[in-house]
Amino acid sequence: MTDVLERTVTQQPTMRGVIDKIFRQMFENTCQALEVMDGKKLREQSWNRDQKGIWTVGKSSEDAIYIDRALHDGNVFEKMGANYVAIEGELPSGMSFQQSGALATGAADQMITTRGNRFFATGSSFVIHPHNPMAPTAHVNYRYFQISNGNQPIYWWLGGGADLTPAYLFAEDAIHFHQVHKEVCDKYDSSYYPRFKKWCDEYFHIPHRAESRGIGGIFFDHLNNGNPQKLLSFVTNCADAFIPAYLPIVERRKDMPFTEANKNWQHLVRGRYVEFILSCDRGIRFGLASGMVKQQSVFNCMPPAASWEYDDQPVPGSKEAMLKEVLKNPRDWL
Amino acid sequence: MTDVLERTVTQQPTMRGVIDKIFRQMFENTCQALEVMDGKKLREQSWNRDQKGIWTVGKSSEDAIYIDRALHDGNVFEKMGANYVAIEGELPSGMSFQQSGALATGAADQMITTRGNRFFATGSSFVIHPHNPMAPTAHVNYRYFQISNGNQPIYWWLGGGADLTPAYLFAEDAIHFHQVHKEVCDKYDSSYYPRFKKWCDEYFHIPHRAESRGIGGIFFDHLNNGNPQKLLSFVTNCADAFIPAYLPIVERRKDMPFTEANKNWQHLVRGRYVEFILSCDRGIRFGLASGMVKQQSVFNCMPPAASWEYDDQPVPGSKEAMLKEVLKNPRDWL
Repeated sequence: MTDVLERTVTQQPTMRGVIDKIFRQMFENTCQALEVMDGKKLREQSWNRDQKGIWTVGKSSEDAIYIDRALHDGNVFEKMGANYVAIEGELPSGMSFQQSGALATGAADQMITTRGNRFFATGSSFVIHPHNPMAPTAHVNYRYFQISNGNQPIYWWLGGGADLTPAYLFAEDAIHFHQVHKEVCDKYDSSYYPRFKKWCDEYFHIPHRAESRGIGGIFFDHLNNGNPQKLLSFVTNCADAFIPAYLPIVERRKDMPFTEANKNWQHLVRGRYVEFILSCDRGIRFGLASGMVKQQSVFNCMPPAASWEYDDQPVPGSKEAMLKEVLKNPRDWL
Repeated sequence: MTDVLERTVTQQPTMRGVIDKIFRQMFENTCQALEVMDGKKLREQSWNRDQKGIWTVGKSSEDAIYIDRALHDGNVFEKMGANYVAIEGELPSGMSFQQSGALATGAADQMITTRGNRFFATGSSFVIHPHNPMAPTAHVNYRYFQISNGNQPIYWWLGGGADLTPAYLFAEDAIHFHQVHKEVCDKYDSSYYPRFKKWCDEYFHIPHRAESRGIGGIFFDHLNNGNPQKLLSFVTNCADAFIPAYLPIVERRKDMPFTEANKNWQHLVRGRYVEFILSCDRGIRFGLASGMVKQQSVFNCMPPAASWEYDDQPVPGSKEAMLKEVLKNPRDWL
C-alpha cells in the first residue's frame, strides 16, 4: 500500500495498473468469501461497450472493464449481485458529470469543460439478500474517481460504505457490524466513525416513508482532504472489514427457524428497499440515466422478491414494530 | 350531464356538489362492479388532513375527502387499490403546483401567485392485479382540476386514461380493450383515439428498460380546448367504459390453468411495473413529494409481489419473448 496513490496521482501511466489492482483484489476477496459461505458459485457476465455506446457480452476493452456476478437461489443467499467496473475515457460534454455526483459541490467547472481532460472511475459493489429473514440484507460499495489533464491528475476522490437492512432486529448484530467499522475508522481519524455513521443514516433514508432503509453502517463520498495514500489505505481497510463485519452475523442467523409470516415481513421490508433504490438512490438514478452502466448491472442489486400491502403497519409491541421504531429513529449502536 | 360543467364554471357555489357527484359516482360504480366479480368486498379507510398537514383516519372534512379502498387476496384479484379524492383549498405558495403538472405548460403564472386563488381537484384511480398470470393488470384514473378567483373559475382541465399490463399477451384482449375505448373516443372526436393511444404509449414507457409498461390503452392530460360539458361527458363515458373494456378479459382468463413458471414471469413483469411507478411516474412522484396525499394512498397501486432476476431475458420464441417484443415495439391494435 505504500505510496500507491501518491505515485498514481503524480505518474499517470501507472494509475490504471495500481488502483485497478487494489480495487479488483477487494472485489475478488469479497466474492470468494461469500462463495465459500454459500457453497454455490457466482455466475459471471462481463461487458464491453463500443464507441457508439452499444453493449455486448464478452471481453472487456482496454478502456473499460465491466464485470457482473450474480447468484440466484444459493444455499444461504437467496440473491446476490456483485459488480466491478473500471472505466477510463474522455469527459463527456454537457452537464451529466456534474449532475451525477461525480464531482463534489464546488469542484471547478473547467475540469469538465477543458478539452482533452480524461476521467478514470473504478469501484465494486455488493448487495446480498439471504434466504433467512433473521439474517439481514447487506450492501457494500467502494469507489475511486479521478480527472486528469494530460498526465496530470487534477482531481480525485474516494467514496463508499457498508450498511445493513434487517427484517428482524438483533441488537448484537447491529453492534457488531458498527463496531468492526468503527475500529477501522478509529485507526485513521477519530472523527470518521461519528461523521460517516451519521452520513449513512442520512443517505439511506426514505423521505416519503419517513424511515431509514436499515440500521446503517458507514457512508462517505468525495473524500479527498488528506494524504492520498492514507485515504486509499483507509478505504482498502474498510473494504476488507466487510467480511468480518457481516459473515459472522449471517453465520448465526442463517439456520434459525422462521415462519411464513416472518418471510412475508421480510418481503415487505424488501419492498421498502426497492422504493429506496428506485426513488431515492442518486447513484442508481445516475446509473440509469447516464447510459454509462448497463441497466442489467444497475439492477443487480434488486431483491429477489418484494411485496406491498395496504396499511402494512405492524402490531404494536411485536418484533416487527420494534424494527419499525428503530427505522423511524436511528439509534447510536455503540 | 346537460350543461353540468358550464354551470360549474360559471357558478362557483354549485361546483363541489355537481362535479363531486359525477366523479364519486364513477368511483362507486367501478368499485361495485369489481366487488361483484371478485365476490369479496373492498376494505375502506378514509382520511382527514388538518391545517398542519397531519393525517388522521376518520371522517373527511368539509374541504377534503380522501377515500382509500383496498382488497388483498380476493377470489379473482390478488390485490386491488382504489382511491378517491376531492380537495378544495387555497393555492399553496411556491412552485410546487407548477412542478406537479397540475398546470399545463404555458398556463399563466398569476393563477398561482394571485392571493386568494383557490384550487379544486378531484379524481379516482384503480390499479387491479389479478391472481391468474393470464389475466392482465389494469390501471384506470380520471381527474378534474380547477383554479378559481373568488367565484370565477379561471382555469380547469380534465385528464386520465386506462391501460393494461399483461404478463401473457392475448391479442384478442388487447384488441377488445382498445376497441371499447376507441368507440367512446370516436363518439366525440375522431382524432382522440389515435392521439390518446399514442400519448398512453409515450407516458407508460420505462426509458431505462427501453420498453413499455404494458400494451397501452388511452391517456390524456390538461384537456380543456373544447366545450366543457362535452369534455366532461367524454370523460364520464371513458370512465364508464372501463368495466366493459376490462372485466370480459378477466372473465375469460381468471380460471385458465397456469404453472409456477407463469407465476414467476408475472412477478418479473410486476417488477417492471414497480420500476415504472417509482422511477418514471410523474403523478406518483408528485404525490410523494407534495405531502398532499398520504403515502399509504399513493402506494395503494403497488403490486402484491414483484421480483427481480439478473439477466431475465426470456427464451427466444417463447410466449414471454412475444410479450417482450410488443413491449419493445408498441403495436397498433386496431
